[in-house]
Amino acid sequence: MKERIRALRDLMVKKKLDGFLIMNERSIFYFTGAIGANSLLIPNEGQSILYVYSVNYNSVKDEAKNCIVEKLEKREDFTKKPTEKIRDLKLKNIGFDTLNAETFLQFRKLLRGKARLKPKSELVWNLRKVKDEEEIKLIRKAAEITSRAMEKAYEIVQPGMTEIEAVAEIEYEMRKAGAWGYAFETLLASGPRTAYCHGYCTEKKIKKGELVVIDLGAVYKGYRADMTRTLVVGKPSKKQEKIFNIVREAQEKAFQSVKSGKKAKDIDAIARNFIKEAGYGEYFVHGLGHGVGLDVHEPPTLNSQSKDRLKAGNVVTIEPGIYIPGFGGVRIEDTVLVKRRGAERLTKGPYALTLS
Amino acid sequence: MKERIRALRDLMVKKKLDGFLIMNERSIFYFTGAIGANSLLIPNEGQSILYVYSVNYNSVKDEAKNCIVEKLEKREDFTKKPTEKIRDLKLKNIGFDTLNAETFLQFRKLLRGKARLKPKSELVWNLRKVKDEEEIKLIRKAAEITSRAMEKAYEIVQPGMTEIEAVAEIEYEMRKAGAWGYAFETLLASGPRTAYCHGYCTEKKIKKGELVVIDLGAVYKGYRADMTRTLVVGKPSKKQEKIFNIVREAQEKAFQSVKSGKKAKDIDAIARNFIKEAGYGEYFVHGLGHGVGLDVHEPPTLNSQSKDRLKAGNVVTIEPGIYIPGFGGVRIEDTVLVKRRGAERLTKGPYALTLS
Repeated sequence: MKERIRALRDLMVKKKLDGFLIMNERSIFYFTGAIGANSLLIPNEGQSILYVYSVNYNSVKDEAKNCIVEKLEKREDFTKKPTEKIRDLKLKNIGFDTLNAETFLQFRKLLRGKARLKPKSELVWNLRKVKDEEEIKLIRKAAEITSRAMEKAYEIVQPGMTEIEAVAEIEYEMRKAGAWGYAFETLLASGPRTAYCHGYCTEKKIKKGELVVIDLGAVYKGYRADMTRTLVVGKPSKKQEKIFNIVREAQEKAFQSVKSGKKAKDIDAIARNFIKEAGYGEYFVHGLGHGVGLDVHEPPTLNSQSKDRLKAGNVVTIEPGIYIPGFGGVRIEDTVLVKRRGAERLTKGPYALTLS
Repeated sequence: MKERIRALRDLMVKKKLDGFLIMNERSIFYFTGAIGANSLLIPNEGQSILYVYSVNYNSVKDEAKNCIVEKLEKREDFTKKPTEKIRDLKLKNIGFDTLNAETFLQFRKLLRGKARLKPKSELVWNLRKVKDEEEIKLIRKAAEITSRAMEKAYEIVQPGMTEIEAVAEIEYEMRKAGAWGYAFETLLASGPRTAYCHGYCTEKKIKKGELVVIDLGAVYKGYRADMTRTLVVGKPSKKQEKIFNIVREAQEKAFQSVKSGKKAKDIDAIARNFIKEAGYGEYFVHGLGHGVGLDVHEPPTLNSQSKDRLKAGNVVTIEPGIYIPGFGGVRIEDTVLVKRRGAERLTKGPYALTLS
């Protein structure tokens, strides 16, 4: 983790920043290994300072690396101490990753023009989006657990059970396989609800012949995976099969095109054009994918507007979908590791439309 | 929900606001019933407008009430359309609930001084913190599911199982009892880790004689509950028993003092002084409680600095704790409904320190 702070400082020099303020809790974890702190101030030299309220002081003090830990008293305005430090160190240009508007205004007031705060989250993302060996190991484990839970889904989904009942079994398997948590709210949608991209799960009963979209992910030691499969309980209709096959092929073609150096928007285009040519372009209503790591949605972004170019060590999802209002939707998603040549699927499992 | 927008407009008039911009997704749900939209603009008269990206357009169009729904094109800057609307309607003073600094700066740039955006989240919270009948019904259900899962915890926790293995069983019960999701990451900490207030769960094995803190909550149709119990696997030590009894009594005394009209800080003081007089004041490192609803941490706040005065219809946690580094911690928490006279515990279950 020490190298991570060093790498950020290298980027700060290039951007003429003499300090960086981090408030995204997962980025704080990335640089220090600690959970539950309030903010991390990284000056261009000397020690970084991690500010934490008393409620989490003991744990953060035990966990934090590469920084000194300063306690914020209960209900103390958390902008005060970092501001004082910024003044003491005479920092002038400070990048930040994420602040809400009120906090930003409060900082600006306290700094009284003596230093400028600039939104520079891309510097942190430039680091976080290229995973190191240790991170890849943890994502690989999260993906294994995720794949196991998806296998379970294929075993247990049946007509008559509610979406929540199905999720109960799937999440139980995920925990038994070692999940430290869930990468996001498990989505299981059935029937017409599959046409919705947000989906969670409800008390709706799964019916024979309905599409079922299952989107789930495990957390392992902070790192996430993300995977979607679509199946039909019973015999699929011609239309269900047709749409499924288009999405399946779009996903495979996109995956085959992933490698270091490739533009993210070009990979998106491969899936998008394929679906468009099949006549369903207007129903592919989201981007092809996103980065996955400590956050389940993070850079790089794979969509038609993306400026990202893939690099070895990126971990991204490839998840085309077709959503037809009233009829239903199909999405197929894997978490994949970008390599120098090609890519590797980290989530693995059957692509079958029907239950075994 | 229509009355909710009307109530907000009444508050807007008092604060001389002619518009309100909402970006907190749970507040958008509160006013419209829709999930997955980007922002909601509520002018002081006429129709409210809900902005949503194409990915969630179909579902939001089906779900949203009390507003018109406008589609944002893929990757369109989401500040553009609301800005145009603000100009069209000649709104001048617009409150907002939550914006990040970059979004705030972008709005300000586009508005070019023609309108002012002011942080006014307290207006929305003034509404959200007093629950109506329908909301109380849903929180009550979430609390029932939560209590059921806690009962399960008392049945299954035993030495030799890992924290994650225990959580697997507890969450499984929560889902089987009807949970739509988890109010927050289930916390199960054992041994010295109980001295940490953040806790999640790990691969650590639970040992005989250790304290185990279990903090969990279910979601039911968007609404949450929050509950903590502390137990010892095996025979508790004298010190464990002593601390447990202090926390138990502090929680009971605080609960007994809850009623409409009471200052939140006075309720905090009752638990805090009791723990202080027992000699453990320095180890009660957090506030007594917080509001619970669509969010698991929301106003009103119960701590020594709180300016809140409780009102019938508030739903809050009462959760004193003592955390001794190296030794461990004890926390006892219930979700309670504030009534005109007194209060009602919505989470229910044994306070036993030992397993039955």
